[in-house]
Amino acid sequence: MKLIRFGAEGNEKAGLQLENKRIDVSAFGEDYNEHFFETDGLKRLKEWLKTNESNCPAINNAVRLGSPIARPSKIVCVGLNYAKHAEEAGMQIPKEPVLFFKSTTAIVGPNDNVVIPKNSTKTDWEVELAIVIGKKASYINIEDAEDYIAGYVLHNDVSERAFQIEKEGQWCKGKGCDTFAPLGPFLATKEEIKDPNHLELWLEVNGERLQHSSTSDFIFNVQEVVAYISQYMTLLPGDVISTGTPFGVGLGFNPPKYLKPGDVMRLGIEGLGVSEQKAVAYK
Amino acid sequence: MKLIRFGAEGNEKAGLQLENKRIDVSAFGEDYNEHFFETDGLKRLKEWLKTNESNCPAINNAVRLGSPIARPSKIVCVGLNYAKHAEEAGMQIPKEPVLFFKSTTAIVGPNDNVVIPKNSTKTDWEVELAIVIGKKASYINIEDAEDYIAGYVLHNDVSERAFQIEKEGQWCKGKGCDTFAPLGPFLATKEEIKDPNHLELWLEVNGERLQHSSTSDFIFNVQEVVAYISQYMTLLPGDVISTGTPFGVGLGFNPPKYLKPGDVMRLGIEGLGVSEQKAVAYK
Repeated sequence: MKLIRFGAEGNEKAGLQLENKRIDVSAFGEDYNEHFFETDGLKRLKEWLKTNESNCPAINNAVRLGSPIARPSKIVCVGLNYAKHAEEAGMQIPKEPVLFFKSTTAIVGPNDNVVIPKNSTKTDWEVELAIVIGKKASYINIEDAEDYIAGYVLHNDVSERAFQIEKEGQWCKGKGCDTFAPLGPFLATKEEIKDPNHLELWLEVNGERLQHSSTSDFIFNVQEVVAYISQYMTLLPGDVISTGTPFGVGLGFNPPKYLKPGDVMRLGIEGLGVSEQKAVAYK
Repeated sequence: MKLIRFGAEGNEKAGLQLENKRIDVSAFGEDYNEHFFETDGLKRLKEWLKTNESNCPAINNAVRLGSPIARPSKIVCVGLNYAKHAEEAGMQIPKEPVLFFKSTTAIVGPNDNVVIPKNSTKTDWEVELAIVIGKKASYINIEDAEDYIAGYVLHNDVSERAFQIEKEGQWCKGKGCDTFAPLGPFLATKEEIKDPNHLELWLEVNGERLQHSSTSDFIFNVQEVVAYISQYMTLLPGDVISTGTPFGVGLGFNPPKYLKPGDVMRLGIEGLGVSEQKAVAYK
């Protein structure tokens, strides 16, 4: 299944992306949130669809998409998880996953505007494969990790490099600004994705392809990352793990390239669709 | 008012700490969560108490206390916010607040056990004044910060120093382990606390006083911290900001002192009560 959420910001309804159309499944009566994943919602929804799908109204393609999942308890990100990106960022290749949090208030829909924060001069892009957790995970093994995954989603881990790196302390100042986490267009449940460690991903700014790689270049793969994080904190159903970005971010150019109002980012991952965000000034 | 939540973990009910007793206000029908603070819950509860307080059942003092607030969207922490603690940690005095996140899955009640994580050798204590946000805050000024605060709560920012400092990357690995955020005993609404920047705070391990300071030693005070964070992310009603710990953590001793199973931490802040946690091994 491909889960979507649609409608006005803050009032999104549950839907599904089918092969040729989108349908409204709000009659199922649940949002795609912690409770949904925790109570085997994917299985229950699939069952419900058997008798109800034909009555689900189609959604007009012009309707706004929101994040395909409701606000999670956390977004845990893996930094420097592609060797060539670690190099362009001037950082060492990590011997174990580098983790940081992104504020969940940063989440927006896949095609919403990205707001360049006040006083920002270095807002940058990062196409990433994000994992959505399906059940509570604490101290799990790599071999079992797949059991704890609900699915996958396209994520632009928008980052303000001056806030992230030049400010004192930890990276979170440049990672959690409002609108810095466009998620979607859809959450593909895991059976839709044959091998998450072998997906092409790319990002363009104003039509120019700046990132283009494959998750086969991961330093730590999907299963390793989920198991690793679960050694340090409990992952809850619906939690998001973003797996890091490949070479080609603005920071890595000489001189660096950063977003200006009006710039358009377009990004995609094989099997996970395409999203597009326009950068706008804060007002 | 002094808000408490009581009962079994995961099923806490809303209550109040009065001068000489605790009462159950679950008949008010709300939990102390984002929605409560966002919809002027403190004012509405006060009004409701005028006619209902006499019917609220008393709570037996033996009943477990939970965190006085339901799970927030985030816990933002300020690092190195007391000069003498920055020194003992071997870090520079910061020129602007150092921020990091603590996983909200770390929250427990004020007197619950603290679980020393698997593979931990350096679990440490940190008594801290935590702020609870009362309304949505984005790009606010220092002068207005108080309007955005609901109240204050005692927090033990439990930290695993090897996970925090010796592992690659950011601090979050050593800050968000399960049970690493005992909150409470109560949330004191802001009118209960005359000056949050002038409160005595202390922590004892097995009866020995190891931390003892005053929030008047803050490098960045409560209003400055709230305004600062709001430049980098939107704070939501119910969000927790922990303001940093003073001198006297285990890391600072020579040789360092860390928690062993059976050790008891007891901590308090003037006007915010006392909490006590026993360290236990992971099983």
